[in-house]
Amino acid sequence: MTDEEDAPSVALGAGREFDAIRSMLRVWGPRAHGIGDDAAVIDVPAGDRLVASTDASVEGVHFRRDWLAPREIGARAAAAALSDLAAMAAAPLGMLLALGVSPGWRDELDELARGVGEAAERAGCPILGGNVSAAAELSLTLTALGSTPRPLGRNGLRAGDVLYVTGALGGPGAALGALRAGGTPRALHRARFAAPAPRIAEARWLADAGARAGIDVSDGVVADAGHLAAASGVHIVLEPAALPCIEGATPELAATSGEEYELLVGFSSRALPDVRAFERRFGIALTAVGRASEGSGVVVERDGARVDPLPGHDHLS
Amino acid sequence: MTDEEDAPSVALGAGREFDAIRSMLRVWGPRAHGIGDDAAVIDVPAGDRLVASTDASVEGVHFRRDWLAPREIGARAAAAALSDLAAMAAAPLGMLLALGVSPGWRDELDELARGVGEAAERAGCPILGGNVSAAAELSLTLTALGSTPRPLGRNGLRAGDVLYVTGALGGPGAALGALRAGGTPRALHRARFAAPAPRIAEARWLADAGARAGIDVSDGVVADAGHLAAASGVHIVLEPAALPCIEGATPELAATSGEEYELLVGFSSRALPDVRAFERRFGIALTAVGRASEGSGVVVERDGARVDPLPGHDHLS
Repeated sequence: MTDEEDAPSVALGAGREFDAIRSMLRVWGPRAHGIGDDAAVIDVPAGDRLVASTDASVEGVHFRRDWLAPREIGARAAAAALSDLAAMAAAPLGMLLALGVSPGWRDELDELARGVGEAAERAGCPILGGNVSAAAELSLTLTALGSTPRPLGRNGLRAGDVLYVTGALGGPGAALGALRAGGTPRALHRARFAAPAPRIAEARWLADAGARAGIDVSDGVVADAGHLAAASGVHIVLEPAALPCIEGATPELAATSGEEYELLVGFSSRALPDVRAFERRFGIALTAVGRASEGSGVVVERDGARVDPLPGHDHLS
Repeated sequence: MTDEEDAPSVALGAGREFDAIRSMLRVWGPRAHGIGDDAAVIDVPAGDRLVASTDASVEGVHFRRDWLAPREIGARAAAAALSDLAAMAAAPLGMLLALGVSPGWRDELDELARGVGEAAERAGCPILGGNVSAAAELSLTLTALGSTPRPLGRNGLRAGDVLYVTGALGGPGAALGALRAGGTPRALHRARFAAPAPRIAEARWLADAGARAGIDVSDGVVADAGHLAAASGVHIVLEPAALPCIEGATPELAATSGEEYELLVGFSSRALPDVRAFERRFGIALTAVGRASEGSGVVVERDGARVDPLPGHDHLS
């Protein structure tokens, strides 16, 4: 392993697996480095803790081939993994890609790799290694490695804290609804579905501003608020009327739309973030959407009345 | 995230995916910790470099359900990933497991988890996180994280270096041969196939003894010598007559048998390792099997005559 070695010059042995890897390395160019050993070698900044997450995107479960271009599938899978680093307010160190390749996808590996590489580059995250295997269906399992001196967990919410969400919700849900109905999503919604942006810089800003707990919105903001509530041992009230909705989405859709990769973070009511400074800096909204109190679980209040929490989506079904 | 939190007390949200995770956490007990955030948090020892590798085991590609018990499938997948840490002479820090679960495997998740947990425990490696997804076939993608001040790469071999291999080769190949022919492997061979042991402590001993390059034997010792030769820019001569063969295996089988997870390491001829000390310490052989010289590629010499390198196996086929 030589960390500064450029990908195209990596020496690998013979075999079709290695041909596929060589081709992807050509696509990645300098975005990939250090590949060619049994494992990647990474230097974690002194004083930082390592943050690591693995996330799978499986054809037919997380995406459908007729809905997304191969490049988008690659970028989306990488964005989803990188979003776990954002949820912890960590700076990316590198990614590992395990590809399961079915016969019908062999000719698309370079385009998948291009998408992964573009998402990695946008996040400033090098690609440090991976694995290619035959499989019955396409899957991309991305492991994202990052670091920070103070990881932002799910368990730091306290009664009285105020919850904020970044961006505008509902786009991926609206796009999925249109696609499932055989229609064509609005471009605005499709972009949120096909090319999500992990909120890495935003997360670090929010952590520096004093966020006490955070999660990325992958299961839907109500379901993810439930994860925060469970981990922190608090009750959360969300106000759908307050949810920032993308143009064309209802509050109901914004409440359940998954794979948003926006952030849901909590602040002490005595140290709220400077919303206008955030919005000026990142060009997306930061909106107070609820509050934590003593107790457990999440309730959604609509017109002052409690309604049952709306379900998020469940991948194992 | 609280690092010392025992797995069974982890608070997770609702949903079947989480039920599956909860059940696996019960199986793992204290071997899993820190699970329940978007990412695991790991402390890398000061002065160490992080070593990371991801490795997939896919049903029908890396194993067949009728050949192995679910517990063995789990243990073998974890051992394969941990072996990449051994190849780099790194000490394990933790593992992440991404499970792709087809409907026919839902009832076996606890047994798969038990196998992963047992292999992790033998290696002293906690389980720090993961991902569960529906899939068309069972797959286990393990990301192994470790650290060492001086990772052992593939590119450190120099002309004149002597190559050593740990253990006795041929068992997995012999077992696979018997299974593919519809027969029953000898217990000795089956154990090497079904329950491989990543050579983590052995690797650290060899690195401390001055090993200059290393790789684990996953594609077959000839093919893996080819990876060392390519990465180091040297020519390697292997002597099949010198290969340590497991009882009942021919040198030809020992040369091509993959998924051995033994180590192939190179030492300067001026600083050879104390073979007897190694064998006393670990109870397995350390055998000189070849030599590096100027040039490229691998040749196998049989009875003094060069024969073509034997092929290893190619997963993407």
